[in-house]
Amino acid sequence: MDLLKDRIVSEGRIIGTDILKVDSFLNHQIDPRVMQEIGKAFAEAFSNEGITKVLTIESSGIAPALSTALCLGVPVIFARKTTSRNLDIDTYISSVHSFTKGTDYVIRVSKRYLNDKDVVLLIDDFLAKGCALQGLIDIVGQSGAKIAGAGIVIEKGFQEGGALIRGMGIRVHSLAIVNEMSEKENQITFKDEDNSQE
Amino acid sequence: MDLLKDRIVSEGRIIGTDILKVDSFLNHQIDPRVMQEIGKAFAEAFSNEGITKVLTIESSGIAPALSTALCLGVPVIFARKTTSRNLDIDTYISSVHSFTKGTDYVIRVSKRYLNDKDVVLLIDDFLAKGCALQGLIDIVGQSGAKIAGAGIVIEKGFQEGGALIRGMGIRVHSLAIVNEMSEKENQITFKDEDNSQE
Repeated sequence: MDLLKDRIVSEGRIIGTDILKVDSFLNHQIDPRVMQEIGKAFAEAFSNEGITKVLTIESSGIAPALSTALCLGVPVIFARKTTSRNLDIDTYISSVHSFTKGTDYVIRVSKRYLNDKDVVLLIDDFLAKGCALQGLIDIVGQSGAKIAGAGIVIEKGFQEGGALIRGMGIRVHSLAIVNEMSEKENQITFKDEDNSQE
Repeated sequence: MDLLKDRIVSEGRIIGTDILKVDSFLNHQIDPRVMQEIGKAFAEAFSNEGITKVLTIESSGIAPALSTALCLGVPVIFARKTTSRNLDIDTYISSVHSFTKGTDYVIRVSKRYLNDKDVVLLIDDFLAKGCALQGLIDIVGQSGAKIAGAGIVIEKGFQEGGALIRGMGIRVHSLAIVNEMSEKENQITFKDEDNSQE
């Protein structure tokens, strides 16, 4: 997706070997028009899958997931990372390891909104080691719903998450796959065909 | 906003005297078409204010804020409740008390994305005691930006937040103001004119 890659190149800030900051348009400040195009791209890629629900994790996944759900005309659910008086007691639960924060956290989805009749599209902003996506896959598995695939805004192709999730037989559609990035040279290279690994 | 009130009445679940669960369409599962109408309503209400940024707090504020920002054609920023390697070190910081969780938490916005040239529209899903909104107001104050007002999806008119924020001279535009609700009778009454307090 050229619009996205252009923004990554012009605004992305590389820190160390594995942090790509895109908080000017994707996950702190958000450009709603870029987000709209992201939603359209995912909706198009999965248009023939009979999707009934889009599922993501708070917080950075919410914007691309909402945009996608609007295009597909289906509800979106965001898994909660914290307990809340506003969340049902009866939830699907999974544990996710965060390499970014060095801790584990629990994600929850109310059983009210996901069941074995659903066909689910998973959406997230980043795919790196695949931990968050594995948590969502676990939750969908508990519900008995079918997974149509995963739409990822930016995949870190040099980390193992993509191969891990694809190895589970799940279709992963990434709008930009970063092959290499260098803080020193401030350079990012993308995989030529976004979805050749799909 | 009739569409919203209808959904609150048909799907909202009242627990005790002050919890209104609308997680079937607003803040866990989201109906993207309702969210689109919410965005349109806020954009229309603040169309003449010269808004340059929409500001909210993760997570439940993100969906209505994104929808509004798309209609207004401006970026949206969501304040972070957690530290992250992806967030800049140089941030505006404010402390917010959560009555729902019984704890205080810190919210952060990168100084990179908010400055004294901005005119900011605050968006949140609920207004109850007004703590979260006060945190956002504090952050905008630190940046030197101007506050155009606050767009609230559901205001609990029986709690003090609305009067508190309006008392600060800030325009509050709420799409539904709940005057009373009763778990026992499973009944919700709205303030007739949504924005008569505006």
